[in-house]
Amino acid sequence: MRLDHDQLRQFDEQGYLFLPKVFSDAEVRALMREVPAILGQDRPEVVREKDAKTPRTAFAVHTYNDLFGRLARHPRLIEPVEQLLDGPVYIHQFKINAKAAFDGDVWQWHQDYGTWQRDDDMPEPRAMNIALFLDDVTEFNGPLMFIPKSHKRGVLEAGHDVTTTSYPLWTLDHDTIRALVEEGGLVAPKGPAGSALMFHGNLVHGSPSNLSPWDRTIVYISACHVDNHIRAFKRPAWIAHRDFTPIACLPDDCLLEPAAA
Amino acid sequence: MRLDHDQLRQFDEQGYLFLPKVFSDAEVRALMREVPAILGQDRPEVVREKDAKTPRTAFAVHTYNDLFGRLARHPRLIEPVEQLLDGPVYIHQFKINAKAAFDGDVWQWHQDYGTWQRDDDMPEPRAMNIALFLDDVTEFNGPLMFIPKSHKRGVLEAGHDVTTTSYPLWTLDHDTIRALVEEGGLVAPKGPAGSALMFHGNLVHGSPSNLSPWDRTIVYISACHVDNHIRAFKRPAWIAHRDFTPIACLPDDCLLEPAAA
Repeated sequence: MRLDHDQLRQFDEQGYLFLPKVFSDAEVRALMREVPAILGQDRPEVVREKDAKTPRTAFAVHTYNDLFGRLARHPRLIEPVEQLLDGPVYIHQFKINAKAAFDGDVWQWHQDYGTWQRDDDMPEPRAMNIALFLDDVTEFNGPLMFIPKSHKRGVLEAGHDVTTTSYPLWTLDHDTIRALVEEGGLVAPKGPAGSALMFHGNLVHGSPSNLSPWDRTIVYISACHVDNHIRAFKRPAWIAHRDFTPIACLPDDCLLEPAAA
Repeated sequence: MRLDHDQLRQFDEQGYLFLPKVFSDAEVRALMREVPAILGQDRPEVVREKDAKTPRTAFAVHTYNDLFGRLARHPRLIEPVEQLLDGPVYIHQFKINAKAAFDGDVWQWHQDYGTWQRDDDMPEPRAMNIALFLDDVTEFNGPLMFIPKSHKRGVLEAGHDVTTTSYPLWTLDHDTIRALVEEGGLVAPKGPAGSALMFHGNLVHGSPSNLSPWDRTIVYISACHVDNHIRAFKRPAWIAHRDFTPIACLPDDCLLEPAAA
C-alpha cells in the first residue's frame, strides 16, 4: 500500500485523496457487525445528537472494541499516512461518526488542525485524517464536502460554536468559506463502503444533515507524527489521546482473522 | 409548450417531470433582480428561519410584485399544468423558497396535497406543483429529493411537526419513508437556473439543509383545477388563496417586456 507519485502530488495540491474499496465487503461487514452495540452503549465516549437519542459520534472505539483496535493498526490505512507524514505516527483521535438516517445532523465548516492547535497545543499540522466509509456514501446521506486547496492557507480564524449541534466545534465564518470556495470550488467524494478518504489536517470541510433512510457510518482516524504530539491535556483523553507510542501495524488480514477463528 | 406522450407517461408513472432551461438567462436575471427586495421585506408573508433573520419562504409574491405576477400567468408554466390537470387552473399557493446559502434549513419529508386536504379541505389531488429554479441547483445547495412513484399511494398518514423548522408541516414518519424508498428509490433532479420541475400533489419530497455558499432560490407555484378549489379557509389567504378565477395566460415574452420598457 504505497501511494504513487500522482497520489502524493494530488494530496499536496488538493489536500485530499480518495481511495476506492480499500477494504473488501467481508471486512466491512465484519466491522459493521460491531457498530450497533458500540453506538448503543451509554458511556461518555458516545455523543448523542441534540435529540439526546440518535448516536452522533463514538470516540476512542479502538480502546474498547477489539476489531476496531485492529483497524487502528491496519497497514492499508497507516502505511500511506506514515508515507504522507514522513515518519511514525500515533493516534490522536479515533471515532465512528454515525450520521444516522433521518436524524444525522450537520458538521459545520471547520479545519481539524485548528482544533488540535487551539485545544490540544499540537505544534504543527503534521497530522491528518483517514475517513473510512462503512456505508455507501451517496449524494443523499450527507457526504463530506471538501474545499480543495484550502489546506494551503494555514490555520484560519475560527469561532467556538457551542449551539448549532450537540458537539462544540471551532467553525469558520461565511466570508472565509465564500472566498475559499471561490478559489478552490467544492467537492463531495462519494463511493462504496470500504472506500477511504485521506485528508490534510488543515483542509476545510463540513457535511450536511442526512435526511435519507440510509445511515452514513464513517470511521475517522486522526493520525499525528510522533514528534508532533500534543502538549496540552484540556480535553478528555478519549477525545485527544495521550499515548504517543508509534503504531505498529498488524498483518494485512487482521480484520478477518478473528471472525474466522 | 405541449408535453409529449413520453412526458405525460413519465409524470403518470414517476410523479414528476424535469424540464431543463424553460426560461432563458435573461428571464432568470430579470426575476432574480426582484428577489433581494422581496425577501428583505418585513411582512407576514415573508417567513424567516429559526434564527429569525434568514429568509425561508416568501408567500403570495405574485400579489405584490408585478414581474412575479406575470410569472404566475406564464404560458410555459401554466399550459403544461392545464394539460396535466385536464382543464383550467387557479393558483392555490405561490412562494419563493430561499434555501439561503449557509443557513437554509431542511424541508422534512411530506406530501403537499396532504396539507391541502387536511388544512384547506381541497377535495381531490387534482392539484400539483411547479418548481422553477432561479439559481443553479447542484448536489451542494440542498436540492429537492423525490421518492418516485410515491404519488400513487394516496394521502399517507402524517404528523404535524411544529418544532423542526420555523414553519409547521404535516410530515411522514421514518417507517413510511423507508418503505417508499425501498420501492421507488430516491432522485434529486439538478440543473441550471431556468429549469423547472413539475410534480404531483401527492409525490413525497423533502430537501436537506444548505451548507454551501450558494443560495438555492426556487419559485413554487401550486396550481389546482378550478372545480377542485378549497372549501375551508383556516389558513391565511396568502398561504391558501381564495380567488378561484381561472388563470388567463399572458404572451410568451411577458417577463422581458417590462424590463425593456
